[in-house]
Amino acid sequence: MQKTDRHARAAAAGNGEFERRLPVLIDEWKQFLRFPSLGADPAHAADCRACADWQVARLARMGFDAGLIETPGQPLVYAERMTDRALPTVLFYGHYDVQPVDPVDAWTTPPFEPDLRDGRLYARGAQDNKGQVFFFLKAVEALVDAGKPLPNLKVLIEGEEECGSRGISAWLHECGDRVGADVLMVCDTGAVASGAPTITLGLRGIAFLSFTLQGADHDLHSGVHGGVAPNPANAAAALVASLHGPDGAVAVEGFHDGIVPPTACELELARAATFDAAQYRRLVGTTPDGGERGLDVAERRGFRPALDLNGLHSGYGGPGTKTIIPASADVKLSARLVPGQDPARVLDRLEGHLRARVPPGLTMHVTDRSAGGPGLRIDPESEVVRRASAVLDAIGDDKTAFLWEGASIPIVAALAAASGAPPLLVGFGREEDRIHAPNESFAIAQFREGFLYATLFLSDLAERPA
Amino acid sequence: MQKTDRHARAAAAGNGEFERRLPVLIDEWKQFLRFPSLGADPAHAADCRACADWQVARLARMGFDAGLIETPGQPLVYAERMTDRALPTVLFYGHYDVQPVDPVDAWTTPPFEPDLRDGRLYARGAQDNKGQVFFFLKAVEALVDAGKPLPNLKVLIEGEEECGSRGISAWLHECGDRVGADVLMVCDTGAVASGAPTITLGLRGIAFLSFTLQGADHDLHSGVHGGVAPNPANAAAALVASLHGPDGAVAVEGFHDGIVPPTACELELARAATFDAAQYRRLVGTTPDGGERGLDVAERRGFRPALDLNGLHSGYGGPGTKTIIPASADVKLSARLVPGQDPARVLDRLEGHLRARVPPGLTMHVTDRSAGGPGLRIDPESEVVRRASAVLDAIGDDKTAFLWEGASIPIVAALAAASGAPPLLVGFGREEDRIHAPNESFAIAQFREGFLYATLFLSDLAERPA
Repeated sequence: MQKTDRHARAAAAGNGEFERRLPVLIDEWKQFLRFPSLGADPAHAADCRACADWQVARLARMGFDAGLIETPGQPLVYAERMTDRALPTVLFYGHYDVQPVDPVDAWTTPPFEPDLRDGRLYARGAQDNKGQVFFFLKAVEALVDAGKPLPNLKVLIEGEEECGSRGISAWLHECGDRVGADVLMVCDTGAVASGAPTITLGLRGIAFLSFTLQGADHDLHSGVHGGVAPNPANAAAALVASLHGPDGAVAVEGFHDGIVPPTACELELARAATFDAAQYRRLVGTTPDGGERGLDVAERRGFRPALDLNGLHSGYGGPGTKTIIPASADVKLSARLVPGQDPARVLDRLEGHLRARVPPGLTMHVTDRSAGGPGLRIDPESEVVRRASAVLDAIGDDKTAFLWEGASIPIVAALAAASGAPPLLVGFGREEDRIHAPNESFAIAQFREGFLYATLFLSDLAERPA
Repeated sequence: MQKTDRHARAAAAGNGEFERRLPVLIDEWKQFLRFPSLGADPAHAADCRACADWQVARLARMGFDAGLIETPGQPLVYAERMTDRALPTVLFYGHYDVQPVDPVDAWTTPPFEPDLRDGRLYARGAQDNKGQVFFFLKAVEALVDAGKPLPNLKVLIEGEEECGSRGISAWLHECGDRVGADVLMVCDTGAVASGAPTITLGLRGIAFLSFTLQGADHDLHSGVHGGVAPNPANAAAALVASLHGPDGAVAVEGFHDGIVPPTACELELARAATFDAAQYRRLVGTTPDGGERGLDVAERRGFRPALDLNGLHSGYGGPGTKTIIPASADVKLSARLVPGQDPARVLDRLEGHLRARVPPGLTMHVTDRSAGGPGLRIDPESEVVRRASAVLDAIGDDKTAFLWEGASIPIVAALAAASGAPPLLVGFGREEDRIHAPNESFAIAQFREGFLYATLFLSDLAERPA
């Protein structure tokens, strides 16, 4: 790294600081990952609370006024460290809850026993989002320890991001200007495929619909009843198949209403992060042949909605065969949405489409219906984006890339509104981290990039406020 | 019962005999049901063998020359009791293997701990087929104990009926005329809805196809990959949906080739056993709205094929939501066939239809493909059918009904060929027995009907050979 400006010098210094802190850092990171903070599962409420307490204790040691905020679900971690009214205020948002771990026997080492192999730490949450929360906390700690100037900081870490952010959403309606800030900093995204430092300028929204299709009140003999009783498994397949047309596009009437197309500039920047189909195949084991025909990957992922089955279960799944007509079929669907689509209206259209097609003899029971949140798009020309790119340009050899993500962080739009702050989404995830899947991991090298970014960005804000 | 002919007198005597034997009979029947003889599951091989040994010991005590015949799967029980060359020979066929028991938590009492409640014995196999095998064995025992004349008897009980009858099928090719007989007696069917004694004159054939649709090599994040990666769950749904047309008929080209339509007489007899839609709804919890539009239940069940999903599993099935694109989808299909359809050719057509529709990025792996056997139809005017109806008319108040079953006993056609004997299918099952489902049971009253039928039919053959 031969850069000569102040960011480059700061990066070099931050690198040295990171190396000195590494052994302790890994030990602490493992502590954070050992909590099975499965926020969606009521059986893990105590684990979530213990994990939240652990974070509060760390923040308090760093001079924060820190505590828990109770919600009907998992508690929020909330902490403030106000230094100087003249300096800008950063609201940092993250989540300490993690995705379910099944199929658990596909893990090389148990999901909540963090294991360091070949420079990567393996555990559920290693990246999403505990890893990326923790590099932020370690960066703040390093600056505090060194007596460096810091902007005012507000830290808000929730425990239900993976299951709808219900607690924090309710609280944001009643917290007034407590979360008021100048920048909303979120580290829950990934880098482009090349690995260049990346600012995410778009997130998709999300909406969930799960239902059961009920036929007979018990599994039926498929000989006695084949061709007589309606089969909920076959019917569920037909219902799901009706959701897409032969062109791969969603075929639900009104689903696409209101979609805001990308600007030419956004589409150009999105396509600049070239997509490597061969690398994709190597990393995920299949080809990028999903979605709408005739659109490239950047457009399909960043600017078009998707509607996917997350789970479909009916009848016998054990060894051999079992000649039954299943009593019921369970369907879990979720839609990724883009700006302009209203999640609640999309759910109305989707449920209406399905209900209109339930065949005689079967009943549809909706078991979950939730509008996670709308899509989000951030202006590439904004002040906070320019400031972050300058920092990111300094920490590696690559120029900063811009990404319109396919994923959702539904709470970001609500946080931006509540805080009055523009969102800044910078994350260091990569495909090989396998978030949401068995053997999730995060490399020490990725963690270091995050640590440097957070250190430099916070210092820059404190030293050169706008 | 005021009938005056010899069958009616024999029935009255048999009834008395049954009452005397009942306490011991229930105890022995429970012993038979306690073996978890899950023939499809290699983990239960020892249980199947123990169950077969138990039957051999019983047959030996009744004067049979009895033993096990080894197969690559579960052993066959084979026993002979030859009395007089001048008398006809009955080959009795049954099976001691049972269907899987899941969902096991839907059982009121454990499936292999038989429980007698309100005149019904509850256990997996209580009816199918241990219950209906056991009334035959008890009938023979009663005649032997009383020193009554019996025809020559051959008993063949297999342990793989519910999973393809592979062992017995192979053995039938090499057993020569060892199973030669004059009547092939099978008690593995049910009565018509009214409960009248029933002779089954048709069985459907069966063919199995299971496959996995593989996409990525791990579950993918549905945000990052939604609209990019192909979704095996959605694709499996579309494949399965393509198997039927909007009229409910199978839409696989060539599937219906060669089907032999019923005669006017068969259709009339089949329709005489009136179908009660209200009773159907009460017993199974849904309406008889499956299968092909525009055909009545008797025709759809007895004379038309069906193609049903027995299992469909993909992705997340736990509580809450999990935003993944599943790595794969597992599909278990089976077809019920009618005379004229060749199971192997049907499988070719079905597999070809599916393979031609697998979308890019996904791979189809066939995990099971087996041609269970063709459909079967028996002449209502044959000697053995007339003889059995006379006996059945005597044991209750109702006239004998004739049934073209939707279910399959694939081995019956092969046994008929190997033995040279016409099949006689008389069984006492009812819908409320819930075979293949949780809480299978068989009423003492049904068992008694079977006991009387077997007693009278065997006596009649011995006393009045053709």
